[in-house]
Amino acid sequence: MNEILQITSREEVMFFDTDCGGVVHNLAYLRMIETCRTRLAAKMGMDLRTMADSQLFPVVVRTEVDYRLPARLGDWLVIEGHLAEIDGARFWCHFTMKREIDGATLVTARQALALVQMPAGKPRRLPADWKEKWTFPAK
Amino acid sequence: MNEILQITSREEVMFFDTDCGGVVHNLAYLRMIETCRTRLAAKMGMDLRTMADSQLFPVVVRTEVDYRLPARLGDWLVIEGHLAEIDGARFWCHFTMKREIDGATLVTARQALALVQMPAGKPRRLPADWKEKWTFPAK
Amino acid sequence: MNEILQITSREEVMFFDTDCGGVVHNLAYLRMIETCRTRLAAKMGMDLRTMADSQLFPVVVRTEVDYRLPARLGDWLVIEGHLAEIDGARFWCHFTMKREIDGATLVTARQALALVQMPAGKPRRLPADWKEKWTFPAK
Amino acid sequence: MNEILQITSREEVMFFDTDCGGVVHNLAYLRMIETCRTRLAAKMGMDLRTMADSQLFPVVVRTEVDYRLPARLGDWLVIEGHLAEIDGARFWCHFTMKREIDGATLVTARQALALVQMPAGKPRRLPADWKEKWTFPAK
Repeated sequence: MNEILQITSREEVMFFDTDCGGVVHNLAYLRMIETCRTRLAAKMGMDLRTMADSQLFPVVVRTEVDYRLPARLGDWLVIEGHLAEIDGARFWCHFTMKREIDGATLVTARQALALVQMPAGKPRRLPADWKEKWTFPAK
Repeated sequence: MNEILQITSREEVMFFDTDCGGVVHNLAYLRMIETCRTRLAAKMGMDLRTMADSQLFPVVVRTEVDYRLPARLGDWLVIEGHLAEIDGARFWCHFTMKREIDGATLVTARQALALVQMPAGKPRRLPADWKEKWTFPAK
Repeated sequence: MNEILQITSREEVMFFDTDCGGVVHNLAYLRMIETCRTRLAAKMGMDLRTMADSQLFPVVVRTEVDYRLPARLGDWLVIEGHLAEIDGARFWCHFTMKREIDGATLVTARQALALVQMPAGKPRRLPADWKEKWTFPAK
Repeated sequence: MNEILQITSREEVMFFDTDCGGVVHNLAYLRMIETCRTRLAAKMGMDLRTMADSQLFPVVVRTEVDYRLPARLGDWLVIEGHLAEIDGARFWCHFTMKREIDGATLVTARQALALVQMPAGKPRRLPADWKEKWTFPAK
C-alpha cells in the first residue's frame, strides 16, 4: 500500500534567524522550509548530488506562506512537509512549522514546483509514475 | 486629489543572490521585495528609525509569490510596489519585479501586513485615515 | 582533569548555500561556523535562551577566515570548533570545516569574541574561572 | 598619472540585516562589503556579466574583519573599498564601513582574492598590467 510522502526536519533558531523586532525574520522560516523541501525531494529521487549531476532541478514556481505566531532565539522548530498534490506539470508541497516545546503552529506554507532542465531552463513533464507511487492526502 | 501609494527600487543581482542552478535563488527575490516594501512603509510614515524607536512594526502575515522567469548574475531588476488594499486589520502590498533591460516580468508577489506592537507582539488597528489618505487601484 | 572545550556540528550544503560559480558562497561557510560557535557557547554556559533572557551576548569582534577548497551542493560538511585562547577581555574560537566524505579541509577560521551587555552595548569582563575550567590547546 | 582604484557604496540597514541583539548581524556587514567589492571588481574589468560569460571569477581566499561599533536599523552606511596590494597570485582589497550621519568607523576589513577559472576551479595568474595600471596606497 502506498503512503503519503512525508518528512520532518528540526531547526534551532540562531541569531542570524532573528531580527531587531526580537523574533524570527520571515525569510528565515522560508530558508528552513527549503531545507525540509530539499530532503522531501531527496525521498522523491531528487537528491542534491543527483541534481548537481543531472542539472534537472525542482524549481519553486509559487509560494504561499502564512505567518501565525513568531519563533524566538533558541526555540526548536519542527517542520513537517509532504507531497500534497500533482497538478499537471506542477506538484505541491505543504509545510507546517511547529514550536517543539508546546506544539504551537507558527507557520504554514504551500509551494508549487516544476521540473526544469538547467542551464536551458526548459520545463520537463513530471514522471508518470508519481501518481501511482504515492498516496495524496484528502484535501 | 489622492494618489496610489507607490514606490520603485532597483537591485543589481550579486553572487550571493544566485545559486548553483545559475539563476537567482527564490529567497533573494523576497529580500529585494522586503527592501522595496520597507521604503513603501517609510512613505506611509513607518520609516526605520521611527519603528526602531516606537517598536510598532508592520509585520508580514501572508506572502504569495509567483516566480515566472529567472534573473541572472549582473541583471538589474526594477521592483515596483504599491499599497493595494486595506482589509480590516491587514493591508496588502503588491509587487512586480521586472528585468530592466527588456521589461520582462520575472516575479510578482502580494503581501498582507498587520501592525504589531513589540516586544509584546500585540496587534494594533490600522490608522483610520489610511483609507482617505490614499487611492487604491481597481482590482 | 580539564578538557579542551570542543564541539562538532554537521551541515548539508543546500541550494541557498551555493552561488552561480557552482560552489558554496563565502558567506554561507560563516553562517555554518556561527551555528557551530553558538553550540560551543552553549557548552560554556551561554545558551540561546539564557542569552535571550540575560541580554548578555558573546559578540564577534574579529574574524579571520581562509577559504582553501570549495564545497559543492549536497556535500556534508563537518565543522569542528574549540575554545583556543583567553586574551584579556577577548576569547578566541578556532574552526575547521572538513568535507565528510574524504576529510579534506575546506575552510579554517578564528574568531575573537567579547561579552557585551545589550541593549547598552557595554563590554563585560570574562568570568575569572574560565581559565581554570578548561584546558587550552598548545599554539 | 595612475590613481588608486577605489569605490564607495551606500547601504540602508534593513530588518533582515539586524538580529535580536538589536544591531546589525556580523554576516550582513560582509554581504554589504561583497556588493562594494563586486563594484570594485567591475572597475577592474571584471563586471558581473563578463564573469557570467567567461566563468573567470575573483574568488575570496582570505577575509579579515574587525567589528568596532555596531550599526542599527535605519542607519545609512558608507562602504569605501580600494585595491590595496598585489601579492603574487593574490590581490588584496581593503574596506572601511562608516555610519553616514557621524562618520564613525564601524567595520574594517581586508580580503585577499585570486582569479579562478570555473567550473574547473583552476587558479589563474593575475594580469601583468595591473601593477602598472593602478597606484597602490602606502602601507
